[in-house]
Amino acid sequence: MPDDQGQRMTERRGTLFGGVFSRGLRLGDEAWLQAMLDAEAGLARALERAGIAAAGSGAAVTRAAAARNFDAAELGELAALTGNPVPGLSRLLTRAVAENDEKAARAVHRGATSQDIIDTAAMLLARQAMDAAIADLETAADRAAALADAHSGTVMIGRTLLQQAVPVTFGVTAAGWLSGLDSALAGLAAARDQRLAVQFGGAAGTLASLGDRGPRVAALLAEELGLASPPLPWHTERLRLIDAAAAMARVTAATGKIARDVTLLAQTEVGEISEGPADNSNKPGGGPGLAAGGPKPAGNEGAPRRGGSSAMPHKNNPVASVAVLGCARQVPGLLATLVASAEQEHQRAAGAWHAEWQPFTEILNLGGSAAAWTAELLGGLRVDKARMSANLTAAGGLPLAERVTSLLAGVLGGPRAHDVVATAAAKSVSSGIPLRDVLTAAPEITEAGIGAGQIEQALDPAGYLGAAREFVAAALRAHESRDNSKN
Amino acid sequence: MPDDQGQRMTERRGTLFGGVFSRGLRLGDEAWLQAMLDAEAGLARALERAGIAAAGSGAAVTRAAAARNFDAAELGELAALTGNPVPGLSRLLTRAVAENDEKAARAVHRGATSQDIIDTAAMLLARQAMDAAIADLETAADRAAALADAHSGTVMIGRTLLQQAVPVTFGVTAAGWLSGLDSALAGLAAARDQRLAVQFGGAAGTLASLGDRGPRVAALLAEELGLASPPLPWHTERLRLIDAAAAMARVTAATGKIARDVTLLAQTEVGEISEGPADNSNKPGGGPGLAAGGPKPAGNEGAPRRGGSSAMPHKNNPVASVAVLGCARQVPGLLATLVASAEQEHQRAAGAWHAEWQPFTEILNLGGSAAAWTAELLGGLRVDKARMSANLTAAGGLPLAERVTSLLAGVLGGPRAHDVVATAAAKSVSSGIPLRDVLTAAPEITEAGIGAGQIEQALDPAGYLGAAREFVAAALRAHESRDNSKN
Amino acid sequence: MPDDQGQRMTERRGTLFGGVFSRGLRLGDEAWLQAMLDAEAGLARALERAGIAAAGSGAAVTRAAAARNFDAAELGELAALTGNPVPGLSRLLTRAVAENDEKAARAVHRGATSQDIIDTAAMLLARQAMDAAIADLETAADRAAALADAHSGTVMIGRTLLQQAVPVTFGVTAAGWLSGLDSALAGLAAARDQRLAVQFGGAAGTLASLGDRGPRVAALLAEELGLASPPLPWHTERLRLIDAAAAMARVTAATGKIARDVTLLAQTEVGEISEGPADNSNKPGGGPGLAAGGPKPAGNEGAPRRGGSSAMPHKNNPVASVAVLGCARQVPGLLATLVASAEQEHQRAAGAWHAEWQPFTEILNLGGSAAAWTAELLGGLRVDKARMSANLTAAGGLPLAERVTSLLAGVLGGPRAHDVVATAAAKSVSSGIPLRDVLTAAPEITEAGIGAGQIEQALDPAGYLGAAREFVAAALRAHESRDNSKN
Amino acid sequence: MPDDQGQRMTERRGTLFGGVFSRGLRLGDEAWLQAMLDAEAGLARALERAGIAAAGSGAAVTRAAAARNFDAAELGELAALTGNPVPGLSRLLTRAVAENDEKAARAVHRGATSQDIIDTAAMLLARQAMDAAIADLETAADRAAALADAHSGTVMIGRTLLQQAVPVTFGVTAAGWLSGLDSALAGLAAARDQRLAVQFGGAAGTLASLGDRGPRVAALLAEELGLASPPLPWHTERLRLIDAAAAMARVTAATGKIARDVTLLAQTEVGEISEGPADNSNKPGGGPGLAAGGPKPAGNEGAPRRGGSSAMPHKNNPVASVAVLGCARQVPGLLATLVASAEQEHQRAAGAWHAEWQPFTEILNLGGSAAAWTAELLGGLRVDKARMSANLTAAGGLPLAERVTSLLAGVLGGPRAHDVVATAAAKSVSSGIPLRDVLTAAPEITEAGIGAGQIEQALDPAGYLGAAREFVAAALRAHESRDNSKN
Repeated sequence: MPDDQGQRMTERRGTLFGGVFSRGLRLGDEAWLQAMLDAEAGLARALERAGIAAAGSGAAVTRAAAARNFDAAELGELAALTGNPVPGLSRLLTRAVAENDEKAARAVHRGATSQDIIDTAAMLLARQAMDAAIADLETAADRAAALADAHSGTVMIGRTLLQQAVPVTFGVTAAGWLSGLDSALAGLAAARDQRLAVQFGGAAGTLASLGDRGPRVAALLAEELGLASPPLPWHTERLRLIDAAAAMARVTAATGKIARDVTLLAQTEVGEISEGPADNSNKPGGGPGLAAGGPKPAGNEGAPRRGGSSAMPHKNNPVASVAVLGCARQVPGLLATLVASAEQEHQRAAGAWHAEWQPFTEILNLGGSAAAWTAELLGGLRVDKARMSANLTAAGGLPLAERVTSLLAGVLGGPRAHDVVATAAAKSVSSGIPLRDVLTAAPEITEAGIGAGQIEQALDPAGYLGAAREFVAAALRAHESRDNSKN
Repeated sequence: MPDDQGQRMTERRGTLFGGVFSRGLRLGDEAWLQAMLDAEAGLARALERAGIAAAGSGAAVTRAAAARNFDAAELGELAALTGNPVPGLSRLLTRAVAENDEKAARAVHRGATSQDIIDTAAMLLARQAMDAAIADLETAADRAAALADAHSGTVMIGRTLLQQAVPVTFGVTAAGWLSGLDSALAGLAAARDQRLAVQFGGAAGTLASLGDRGPRVAALLAEELGLASPPLPWHTERLRLIDAAAAMARVTAATGKIARDVTLLAQTEVGEISEGPADNSNKPGGGPGLAAGGPKPAGNEGAPRRGGSSAMPHKNNPVASVAVLGCARQVPGLLATLVASAEQEHQRAAGAWHAEWQPFTEILNLGGSAAAWTAELLGGLRVDKARMSANLTAAGGLPLAERVTSLLAGVLGGPRAHDVVATAAAKSVSSGIPLRDVLTAAPEITEAGIGAGQIEQALDPAGYLGAAREFVAAALRAHESRDNSKN
Repeated sequence: MPDDQGQRMTERRGTLFGGVFSRGLRLGDEAWLQAMLDAEAGLARALERAGIAAAGSGAAVTRAAAARNFDAAELGELAALTGNPVPGLSRLLTRAVAENDEKAARAVHRGATSQDIIDTAAMLLARQAMDAAIADLETAADRAAALADAHSGTVMIGRTLLQQAVPVTFGVTAAGWLSGLDSALAGLAAARDQRLAVQFGGAAGTLASLGDRGPRVAALLAEELGLASPPLPWHTERLRLIDAAAAMARVTAATGKIARDVTLLAQTEVGEISEGPADNSNKPGGGPGLAAGGPKPAGNEGAPRRGGSSAMPHKNNPVASVAVLGCARQVPGLLATLVASAEQEHQRAAGAWHAEWQPFTEILNLGGSAAAWTAELLGGLRVDKARMSANLTAAGGLPLAERVTSLLAGVLGGPRAHDVVATAAAKSVSSGIPLRDVLTAAPEITEAGIGAGQIEQALDPAGYLGAAREFVAAALRAHESRDNSKN
Repeated sequence: MPDDQGQRMTERRGTLFGGVFSRGLRLGDEAWLQAMLDAEAGLARALERAGIAAAGSGAAVTRAAAARNFDAAELGELAALTGNPVPGLSRLLTRAVAENDEKAARAVHRGATSQDIIDTAAMLLARQAMDAAIADLETAADRAAALADAHSGTVMIGRTLLQQAVPVTFGVTAAGWLSGLDSALAGLAAARDQRLAVQFGGAAGTLASLGDRGPRVAALLAEELGLASPPLPWHTERLRLIDAAAAMARVTAATGKIARDVTLLAQTEVGEISEGPADNSNKPGGGPGLAAGGPKPAGNEGAPRRGGSSAMPHKNNPVASVAVLGCARQVPGLLATLVASAEQEHQRAAGAWHAEWQPFTEILNLGGSAAAWTAELLGGLRVDKARMSANLTAAGGLPLAERVTSLLAGVLGGPRAHDVVATAAAKSVSSGIPLRDVLTAAPEITEAGIGAGQIEQALDPAGYLGAAREFVAAALRAHESRDNSKN
């Protein structure tokens, strides 16, 4: 499918919360309508190619389907009669085609059931959303890789259970982010390429109304739409839908972790990182993602400032991270709904299928939006190395307590070394005496034959980074090999 | 708040899936915008009454807020700058007021933070949705009560684990439905009356910018909007929101059970119940609920038939029950998101708050829609007593096996009686010999001194209904006492 | 039910993760077995009182049920045959009773179906868990009230979106916690007193095997067990179960918010609060809660230190808050499962009912555990007023920017005032010049006739606390009135 | 890892609900303890191989770890001090090793943090559960394939929205089941082989305490345990855990659909399928799955009958399907918890990590149990072809209405044909006149030149199966090619 067709599926108009939750891509009524019409048009072309519909039917239906004169609200009303909007849509489409070509009108919806159209449309929407998310995540991953590379030597304090722990580098932190983004990307690509399939089974999955020509039409329909052709209809075997949704949930899982870190590192009291302004240089190049939803500050003089607060003029809120978190936290519940909906009765389900439409649309929007925000976030991230260094110094050697323990463990054994250093650390905290001095004065340490110089050396953060640099390199290699495999 | 204001909050236009999932009430961008403007206008009036804003400010802001010239899409774009649409909205509103009254413009949003407006608007939307749901559920409960009463003597087979079990009545089945509806109603009423409160705390919950007059303004704002005034702001104490959502989840839990029963009883092979056509006589009288979303078959000649299928002309699908199930199955995941979102940081949260807006709106729509569909469903329900009787007869006495066990238990003891009858039942099924004949021929039974007459009598369904009639009466009494307590 | 019976339901032995997730109360196989046996014994007593079972049956069954010689593992095996453990249990119980009293054995399980026993047992477990949670939450709420009272004048910086915002007090922060705890308590009490009811309906909810005496037995059973007697059986009307679970979810919602705040305030870089050691003085007095799960450091010389890390000897992890968060985050998904399970078929369900047992048990354990941990957490909390003051000073006046805006808004109008101060704040941050000096030098401010003295005064945190003290008082009044209403 | 080691991880004793929800595999405290000890022992061996620990350390620790004298309850108590059971366990293990070999004791837990041990143990448990589930699913898939093949010509009525629709075959129904099982299998195999990796990062993910030898130890540890070696530690990048859980959720999604169909087809009024007895011939051959949890009727004289009811002796409940549904419905909420837990702070998380342990264990048990039950279910399934045929005949031609529509559509156009047949079908239902007679009398049809013979032929179910046979063949080919790819 050409890019411009994909583009078409995106809503032309935004929504009230869409600036936050449908960034880069907005799938709503318009996109659904268009995707359903694309499915109907593709079917007419497939029927014509299979010799079942009259010559010209495909083109005639495709033309009528492109006319955009279908009204979502009207179809919504009609949907209340049958439980879904397709019967209304196919009647209107048939009428529209018949105005110009009575024979072609007979090809509309032929052999199909409502679910064929909705499920196939859902797959088209998923592809659209995944393409945008892939583009944005690639930008995000490249940016995380650049951060990991640039900061592989930038020492900062590592934090566990929200307490300062031992030194790490900002590079290895970003490498962890990169690893999650690359994994999310791989999952998206696999789901997009292997799990998006056409749905075409007719009333009860046998395509009986097409006699023995059903599978041929199904294969041609798949070809027309660029989707996979499954061995048999999947009306009540919903793993494909779950896989697409799970791939998006992996996106919000990976980006949510990054956003949580950024909000914590951007705290006023920590200040090691801040979100940059939303300027154009942060926009990813080619992806269809950000373009659509990006803020347009120019010509909007009265607009609120990025990161501003309606009450507090000094605030610089981490808007992108907050938006990612807002997206990410909506996804688990929606995924649960889709997994629960897999319990579908017989040949086509009563309610479980219907329950999928909205959560599936929403999970595509939220996953795509999280990807777009993350690309922007990582593009504008400001790293304050001086603050990282200051926070590390302020810890007074405590983060190196583990290293001193390692030093002692060889002599005293692990548990005893642990206890000796814990006591010294507690004393340092309560008394304000630097850990170094408490340790060199401790009799157990003197008795163990550990000198002040060894203690001193043990307390140097830069000397206690273990495999941090090697881990960064490994993450970068994995990132690059993925890129290369695409060439 | 007068009904017409409530009416205003409902979207004027439907959506593609809204006929199914937003029946009776549609809360979307328009409703949100209006509710936020109502909150801002109420604040201006409260400020004026508290002597903080200039005379006339309240009216001026209320006028500007009613003008409906705010654009959701534009505000959505602006929301991307600050993470929510309020800063953009309050700027536009200020500008609109200032055009006519510069002094009044200073009252706009004074003392408030964005969250004050969004949370208060959410409470207004919840009240709107709850009022509609209460009206529809009252209709539904009255109809269930009528069914329970009318059918307290209509014997049908009871089913457990989807197998025929022992006889019950359709009356006691409907009494069970009624009990759930009444409980859902009581929960809605309690949440509506006790848990919907104004939010007004300013930047960090102290209303500092209003000096010592904050609590007075908060109380007046609550009065203006008809919401409760909480002891202190609840910016990061989210139980009120959870309670409103849980009340709606109880609605879908109670109605989902009914819908599941209807789909099962309407199966072609069971046929004891069917959904009637959607005609006007089924519409509840006063509720704002159904009116908005009801199908309009008249003048819509090309419209699909209610319950029809796009592929199969003979189908009569139970559309209302399917719609209720479709609503009900989306709710658990949304409720989970809201409960998980209660973990909000410090004075106002980064992401968890934002994650609430969409699930909360959706849960209101789905709960309201399930209530509207259920009222309609129970209004049109067709009960086929002949089929109930036929299904019971076809079971050949097996459903009375328990009763025979009770008869024998006094003589043989529970476990042995159970085994003897189980063996007889299995023999009856495999041989086709009526259970009666198998039993009277069983030596254990003869030995126990049980005669054929006793067996015969034990196998009469109408004589084995236990407390069914009494349970119906108890459920009806509970329903009526609830009604009376409102007078 | 006397305390000692309650005590009996708690497992005697802990589990691997139980120290964290089943603190204060552990409901597992033993508790379930005991509750099911209590239900069976109560039924025998009720049958005897109703004149259906032989004299002495109640005592005989109660004695056998108390013997504790039932084996969960064996019953688990048998459960695979029927889908639940009750048929196996009632057979073993019958046999045990019959050894001493053949007539009494006939009373075992009479009139009941498996679901009657399991549902009633679930209600008994819920009461047990709620009693423990209520006791612990009362302790927690009293401690939060004490903190709010003691610190109503302790100024600290308020934080929104994890950024420093405007000043608040620690008192008003604790008052917010208190408000949530009081609300959770009220919900627990309401659910415990109004929603826990006996289940007794027999095979299909008509109690047919008891003829016309079913309702009488049901009422007596309710009396025996101290549970409410519902108008009719609720086999497939599951709102009672949902209400008990939702009450527990409200506990984890309220306590999770507190725990999140504590982990954030205890961050090394913030340091305004820390968790104290787990000593005995922190234990709540009467509640059955903490006693069971409290750590026992004495006589356990080799035990890890509270808050210690296996790797880092200097760490002082906020274990109690982390445990609360660990509990809280498991609950939304479990609640969703229970709400989804409300869609139960006909008279008794195939699978949806079975799906409730484990999530319901787990939600009781997690809610109870969160309550116990929170009581302990708030008992040991250390507030570092000096650090609060230092963090406020370090902010260089920025948190008062809103106040300066208010000052200017009267002259310049809200939006312009906001922008002027935002610009000054940005300049202060980037240049390091105190906000005070930037402001007094700003031409807009001079032109507006605002003097340096006014600016100076506006920047005093203690003078910008708005209604903080009044909100604390309101929360304390609400807390006390709740307590009084119990007397 | 050899089979016997895997075997070891399974609990020796069952639990009350374990017969239903932990069939084939029970992962509980024992399995966790053993897996954590395996991780610690593997680490000691890796350290020795890397030249960091003294010769013999690996064997000494492995020996102590195998001794099984660690007590879950005691460790649970200790866990309350540190938030997890590893610090307590590593101390006890150190002490146990030190009794025989002081030097080896120094190797215990060296370089590791608690999370390294728990995460690695979780991966070992996942592998154990996946191996069992794969074996059971392979059995289940082979059985579904056999059913599809055997019944590719067994005509039955297809059902949509729980209404009779058009004819299908039982073969194509089973082919749909097969397709889901094969997809679930493929997902399990992929997750098992590609996503289960060792966790080893030390305090903050840099392995600093091992200097530059950390990555070497990590690689050796992976080798020792047979897990993948990741590019860098994944302490707060949780996609691996999500992937393992999602693979299990796909199992319950696929098997839940089958179980739902079986419960519906086994309804007394439908009766097309029933669950067979649980006899030995149904047990899958090699899989470790069923053996552990299979019912043992022999020598258990007083045991309840499979499928029996405690109240109704005639019942034959579909226990296996009900158990599968009970498992499947617990999984969506648990998966949501795990996805939500991916938002983990900094280097190691405060609460989100802890929240994973129980849901992850539970999802493994439930997925494994659903697989085991499904294998058994499909092994014993009884297909009643006569009943299928009777149900089809009873429908009086209505299910062929679609076919008549197709016949007419070529002449009248789709919508008009649809309406004509719908009217005829309604008349047939209300009058009792066979559809055939109504149709042949309809003027539109006569006018269209359609004769009675054509109508007659159109109403033959066996002639209206479309691609059913071809779809069965395609599903079988896909199943076999998967099998072959393993050879």
